[in-house]
Amino acid sequence: MNRIERILEGFDPVSNGLDEDFVLTKLTGMKGCGCKVPRNVLLQLLQTFKTDLVINNDEVDIGLDSCVIPLRHPGLRLVQTTDFFYPLIDDPYIMGRVTCANVLSDLYAMGVSECDNMLMLLAVAIDLNEKQRDIVVPLFIQGFKDAADEAGTKIRGGQTVRCPWLLLGGVATSVAHESEIIKVDQAVPGDVLILTKPIGGQVAVNSYEWIKKKNGKIEELNLEIPKIEKAFKQVCEQMSRLNRNAAKLLHKYDAHSSTDVTGFGLLGHAENLARVQKQPMEFIIEKLPIIEYMDEIADKMIAKGGEGFKLYQGTSAETSGGLLIAMSEENAKKYIAELSSLDNAPAWIIGKVTAKTTDSSIARILPDAVRISVPSHI
Amino acid sequence: MNRIERILEGFDPVSNGLDEDFVLTKLTGMKGCGCKVPRNVLLQLLQTFKTDLVINNDEVDIGLDSCVIPLRHPGLRLVQTTDFFYPLIDDPYIMGRVTCANVLSDLYAMGVSECDNMLMLLAVAIDLNEKQRDIVVPLFIQGFKDAADEAGTKIRGGQTVRCPWLLLGGVATSVAHESEIIKVDQAVPGDVLILTKPIGGQVAVNSYEWIKKKNGKIEELNLEIPKIEKAFKQVCEQMSRLNRNAAKLLHKYDAHSSTDVTGFGLLGHAENLARVQKQPMEFIIEKLPIIEYMDEIADKMIAKGGEGFKLYQGTSAETSGGLLIAMSEENAKKYIAELSSLDNAPAWIIGKVTAKTTDSSIARILPDAVRISVPSHI
Ligand SMILES: [Mg+2]
Ligand SMILES: [Mg+2]
Ligand SMILES: [Mg+2]
Ligand SMILES: [Mg+2]
Ligand SMILES: [Mg+2]
Ligand SMILES: [Mg+2]
Repeated sequence: MNRIERILEGFDPVSNGLDEDFVLTKLTGMKGCGCKVPRNVLLQLLQTFKTDLVINNDEVDIGLDSCVIPLRHPGLRLVQTTDFFYPLIDDPYIMGRVTCANVLSDLYAMGVSECDNMLMLLAVAIDLNEKQRDIVVPLFIQGFKDAADEAGTKIRGGQTVRCPWLLLGGVATSVAHESEIIKVDQAVPGDVLILTKPIGGQVAVNSYEWIKKKNGKIEELNLEIPKIEKAFKQVCEQMSRLNRNAAKLLHKYDAHSSTDVTGFGLLGHAENLARVQKQPMEFIIEKLPIIEYMDEIADKMIAKGGEGFKLYQGTSAETSGGLLIAMSEENAKKYIAELSSLDNAPAWIIGKVTAKTTDSSIARILPDAVRISVPSHI
Repeated sequence: MNRIERILEGFDPVSNGLDEDFVLTKLTGMKGCGCKVPRNVLLQLLQTFKTDLVINNDEVDIGLDSCVIPLRHPGLRLVQTTDFFYPLIDDPYIMGRVTCANVLSDLYAMGVSECDNMLMLLAVAIDLNEKQRDIVVPLFIQGFKDAADEAGTKIRGGQTVRCPWLLLGGVATSVAHESEIIKVDQAVPGDVLILTKPIGGQVAVNSYEWIKKKNGKIEELNLEIPKIEKAFKQVCEQMSRLNRNAAKLLHKYDAHSSTDVTGFGLLGHAENLARVQKQPMEFIIEKLPIIEYMDEIADKMIAKGGEGFKLYQGTSAETSGGLLIAMSEENAKKYIAELSSLDNAPAWIIGKVTAKTTDSSIARILPDAVRISVPSHI
């Protein structure tokens, strides 16, 4: 059974030897990127590193998603990233794939498509009994490994401890020639912005949780369960899809800037990327590709006085989201055509780059941004 | 205040802005290396990697403590290791130093003294209130950073999440020329075994916990608190001491084999090292350098029917322990003399290497092994 077939079939605990009511996402109090120490707190806590841990510094080049370190060996850079978090879906196998894809994504965001080594980080929840552990952990590892195989890399180290929560993560490292790394600070006015996966992941994962939890949210918002289930499969597919082809094509089509969209949401990462440009630029988002039906859920939540996961503000968290890229319009069209055929999934031009004036923001979503409802392609 | 002064002074929560009863080690249910998934369980769970995650395989060279990966670039190897665990002492600053020293130790064990990059891994305990967090985390980071500075490396990435337990760790990576890496499988009969830090760390840390917990153990075993407190400072010093000089001298004195002594204890790591030798060898341990008074505690526990932390069996866990090295006797004496003067701390010849016969073990501690009581040098 391949990745897509497995997602479409869904995870059945019983046929995997687990009890009917076994739910992986119960093994954590926080899901996916929701576990991160808030950005402002983190920056405060990391003051100590002010000279070491730098973004946009000459010494480390521009390490936006990964750190990039000049080595003692001429022309070579160490490109490295780590990520760990907690389960946000119930199939341990797909969760393993998502974890691996999410770790690799920060290399891919910098155009580095060859990962030389991965480490797997794992904390096994102490609430798992031995039987559960011996089912869940190998499934997770298999998923992680299959994703690494697909990425042409291997896992050759790691650490495994016990912990109250199931913690999943990894380290991806590439020793790359400087030419393998995309310069991320070269956006120019007239560039367009590409997004390679739709947003709405947090809405999909959470609304699917409401079904499982039977917490009344489905009824309260009058939601259609089959549509949520379909969106959940869609987000599982895109979270477990590697951004590797997207990374390779950055070189072919001369990307001027790129990052991946994860915990800070589309606008958060657009801001991060705009901020590091050599010339002051504004990134303007004119279109919002959204996983089908997730916009309706957000609308209904907002109608009831909620924030709708801040989906339209662009700060709804994505896990293993797509790349956000600036390149010329002509190349963008070719990039999208080629990527879509390779990945069998759409990508979009969602905005443009303009010169920043004193008054303009560094990144914004137009108030009348067009919403594109993206149906599942699986 | 330098590292030694700080250890000698001890950690006072109040003068650090914390409540009198604040105890860092309460932020975890498991201490130090005790959190590891047991080795046999782990090997079972890692079956999936049988072709990838290999010890003693041509492709990854002999990656005993770190993985060693041939790169796409001629002559270069990626040497990488990760470790994370939970606090086992109460001073967050010293704990940061211990964490960093422990991560680096697996590079040093392979003779790699130049670390090109570190990542810091941190899960902030959800039980910490904001005030505690803003005191404890910066102290931890400062300790980690100071140790990295001392190691001539920098921390340029990492991940920070929230978790029920305070999880501390890191990743150390070196892109090294193959000549920088010690061959670990070259032990020959006649070699002696060197140990660069005494054992007994687990006894010291745990007996110190008994004092804090007031759990009656001190009275039951009729122990002398000042001696335990002294041993605790001694173990804090040695856990926070880098094995970097020990690593550099491996090259100068032509070490035939080396590893670091951590979670599996002296005998466990001696077995791991003996097992990977090119020619079948037996590692025989004739002397046990033990932190002063820790042998008496073990004796008293054994007299009461306990196992004494399996100190004499050689499986008592060490955190950030010393290097265990095989080299010629002549070189060993010089190695110890030079290392002792650099680190201002003793090291010992503790045994010998002989050819393995069909009947012999791969590693053992002689039943009449001489115990060396090692007083604190700070
Ligand atoms: Mg990123
Ligand atoms: Mg990262
Ligand atoms: Mg990331
Ligand atoms: Mg080791
Ligand atoms: Mg290690
Ligand atoms: Mg280690």
